[in-house]
Amino acid sequence: MRRTAVIDLGSNSFRLVVYDWDPGGPWTLSDEIREPVRISAGMGEKSLLQPDAIERAVSTAEVFASFCRASGIDDVLPVGTSAIRDAHNRDELLDLIHERTGWDVRVLSGAEEAYYGYLAVVNSTTLADGFALDMGGGSIQVSRVEQRRLREAESLPLGAVRVSEGFLSEDEASAKEMKKLTKHVTDQIERLGWWGGSPRLAGIGGSIRNLAAAAQKRAGYPDSGVQGFSLTRETLAELVDELAGRPASKRGKVPGIKPDRGDVILGAALVLAAAMDAGGFESIEVTEAGLREGVFFERFLDGVHPALIDDVRGQSVDNLARRYGHSGAHAKHVEHLSLELYDGLADADLVERSAEDRDLLARACALHDIGVAVHYDDHHKHSRYLILSSGLPGFDQREVELISLIARYHRKGEPDVSPLGALARDGDQERLALLAGIIRIAEQLERGRDQTVRNLRVASENGSVVVRATADEDDAVAIWSARRAAELLAGALERPLEIENA
Amino acid sequence: MRRTAVIDLGSNSFRLVVYDWDPGGPWTLSDEIREPVRISAGMGEKSLLQPDAIERAVSTAEVFASFCRASGIDDVLPVGTSAIRDAHNRDELLDLIHERTGWDVRVLSGAEEAYYGYLAVVNSTTLADGFALDMGGGSIQVSRVEQRRLREAESLPLGAVRVSEGFLSEDEASAKEMKKLTKHVTDQIERLGWWGGSPRLAGIGGSIRNLAAAAQKRAGYPDSGVQGFSLTRETLAELVDELAGRPASKRGKVPGIKPDRGDVILGAALVLAAAMDAGGFESIEVTEAGLREGVFFERFLDGVHPALIDDVRGQSVDNLARRYGHSGAHAKHVEHLSLELYDGLADADLVERSAEDRDLLARACALHDIGVAVHYDDHHKHSRYLILSSGLPGFDQREVELISLIARYHRKGEPDVSPLGALARDGDQERLALLAGIIRIAEQLERGRDQTVRNLRVASENGSVVVRATADEDDAVAIWSARRAAELLAGALERPLEIENA
Repeated sequence: MRRTAVIDLGSNSFRLVVYDWDPGGPWTLSDEIREPVRISAGMGEKSLLQPDAIERAVSTAEVFASFCRASGIDDVLPVGTSAIRDAHNRDELLDLIHERTGWDVRVLSGAEEAYYGYLAVVNSTTLADGFALDMGGGSIQVSRVEQRRLREAESLPLGAVRVSEGFLSEDEASAKEMKKLTKHVTDQIERLGWWGGSPRLAGIGGSIRNLAAAAQKRAGYPDSGVQGFSLTRETLAELVDELAGRPASKRGKVPGIKPDRGDVILGAALVLAAAMDAGGFESIEVTEAGLREGVFFERFLDGVHPALIDDVRGQSVDNLARRYGHSGAHAKHVEHLSLELYDGLADADLVERSAEDRDLLARACALHDIGVAVHYDDHHKHSRYLILSSGLPGFDQREVELISLIARYHRKGEPDVSPLGALARDGDQERLALLAGIIRIAEQLERGRDQTVRNLRVASENGSVVVRATADEDDAVAIWSARRAAELLAGALERPLEIENA
Repeated sequence: MRRTAVIDLGSNSFRLVVYDWDPGGPWTLSDEIREPVRISAGMGEKSLLQPDAIERAVSTAEVFASFCRASGIDDVLPVGTSAIRDAHNRDELLDLIHERTGWDVRVLSGAEEAYYGYLAVVNSTTLADGFALDMGGGSIQVSRVEQRRLREAESLPLGAVRVSEGFLSEDEASAKEMKKLTKHVTDQIERLGWWGGSPRLAGIGGSIRNLAAAAQKRAGYPDSGVQGFSLTRETLAELVDELAGRPASKRGKVPGIKPDRGDVILGAALVLAAAMDAGGFESIEVTEAGLREGVFFERFLDGVHPALIDDVRGQSVDNLARRYGHSGAHAKHVEHLSLELYDGLADADLVERSAEDRDLLARACALHDIGVAVHYDDHHKHSRYLILSSGLPGFDQREVELISLIARYHRKGEPDVSPLGALARDGDQERLALLAGIIRIAEQLERGRDQTVRNLRVASENGSVVVRATADEDDAVAIWSARRAAELLAGALERPLEIENA
């Protein structure tokens, strides 16, 4: 296994992130240190890094370097962004960092910064055509994506720290100040000439993640991270009101907002709102990936340019399954049997065919047993926990919840969709009962883990559903086990269900 | 990694359990199939296995064998217990099983069965002097343990299936029947002459686990398994009343009782109650380990006789830490610094020294970061989840909860003991704040993972607590980080706390 540390010397915070990976996967984020260094503080119009900011930056770089040494990580990729790029005295900082840590910090151009943000977005969401916005402390990077390729990209000096210092009073922000900030942002974005015109916008950066977390807490969402959350313009407006109604010192107390980000979060929210309005976006899809993942993907997919993961959803599920040693023949065969059963039921008009449901079923099959890594007992519950904790890049939160629930009920229990909360839709209880009912039978047919039952056919006969299994060898036990697990599916179909040898 | 399958052909159920292990550890239970074969059903006084029972037994053995083949497990240890041992026609069954699976089933004598139950108890609890009771379907095994050595052992024909068939009506059990059963058990146990006289009794077997689970549900305990749970005689009496008040067909619906055990669970409860009364035991400590673990330990500790793990608690923590790759220098050093801080505070009379608290702190240090295996984000919460899910043999449930909570609060959050529920005691909130406050500082002093801070000394000066750190190199950053994490401990000590270079 290889280890790579990406060090993001951002304008608002410095972050060290360690990735453990094998070429071709799996990969995982294994360690992280974040420091709110706020290196851009007080840079002002002269664009000079202040002595105390340099001092904080160098000390933090030393901690990170000492961490890497102690952890035996020698693949270290330090990158600097907006504040360092724009500072007239940046060499002073870079020389000091080099002296104390040996690092040659790579200062990214605006275009490079936008490129890595773009990589993070297209490798952690299903965005193929649309736009991305990366909100940093010093700058924002906006880009247009077409068929997963970067078509336009620009870095604009509209980062959260920069606009907050430039436009908003330190304590109470006035309506006039906010209006002026909004106009400033709108002008710069409209000047681009290519922003907007598609419904999809993806967002990255700590401020956007914080705003998403705050929106989730308001709506009573399950607390499982912001990956795949969709923040609406409407909710953002409510957050702006709430933040503007407090002095800056109290904004970090809004649930979901990090205390050390409180003084710049209103500026960030206003920039985002203006950018959404300028492009006509009604919502923004949030990802937990960021610039640092973009830099990592380039290392991970060495030689591929642009460093794109072919199939984000597939890779995301496969990555999770492999992390917990669950990508073998059994999982694949449960998936095969489940899909044959689903397709057979749809062909016989016993269920309404849905590509979405079929996909969720397949993903749940791939992951149903990962909880064994925690403990064999209750492993169906542990599978759910691990799926929810992973975030599953490429899926929205409702999909992740549903996948986790199908896995949860693959062995036993009465399916219950109440954990979906605000994510629930009509028919979800029936959907879960159907999909869990299917995987439960497939799991029992694969009980010997020997792929004895090769294929399934489904027929509707005299008001009953008949599932016929074709097997290489004696499948008496598989069929006997599956029959005992058939109650859930029979209930979901509202018919008697028989399982027999073909 | 090696894989061993232990196959327990029990009188009530057959069970295949797969252990993944390395000589010297770690080991884990990685797979399991249980079938309620009920091979002893209808054996009667003639001690003959019935044809349909033999049929069920052979089919199930075939499933297990096919599972082992498909999983590539060739270290297979099949053992038979009471029902098979006592059956006059056992060779018929053993020959059929051999023919269909190739297995040579090892039929355990009563003494051997008791020995493996004893191994399970002493290797999964801290019982050094006391008694053990293993409740099977056909027989119970009782034993006396002295300084962790087996001193007395006997197998008695008082298993749950056997007494239920012999004494209780199929549907409603009468008071007279129950009294007769109780007297029968009491007589046999009293005849031993060595049962009782110590407060400690440990219990194993599926029926005892079910009774413990039912008791936990009644008391509103956190749902994290029965390992380390203490079932009191008083609660057992309540369960007997509840079970006796229902027809046999409804007893499997009592929360905590497996449906397929419903018809024998009252018999099991009555045997246990009589055995506890005969020995004067007020409670029984439940372990999830069983005969199969005893058989496994003999393989795992090959060459050691008796196959005893030296330090159950230490091995249990170490096993868990190693499973999640968390046994390195960092965890050990956080433990070292935490204990120095604890001892320093006790020496300075700032906290009341408690060997129990100190031990919990050390265990939590060893496990504080295991949650990184789930996801770096929120890994403190994942550590708690993994600790609770593991059960930690050798610790009682209160200890496991406290260890998990100290780990939970090692980075952030306001300590909250409410998850302890019925396990809480006076002073727990203060205890948690103190211990989490200590580990939080130690974690920050070890932030670079480089063991820079070697030692700590504690002094009480002018109403303040002063912690002085000795370091090999520049420890400015470690001290600066630790200061920012000191609030929790300062609050717990109700004094200002300073951290400085020695």
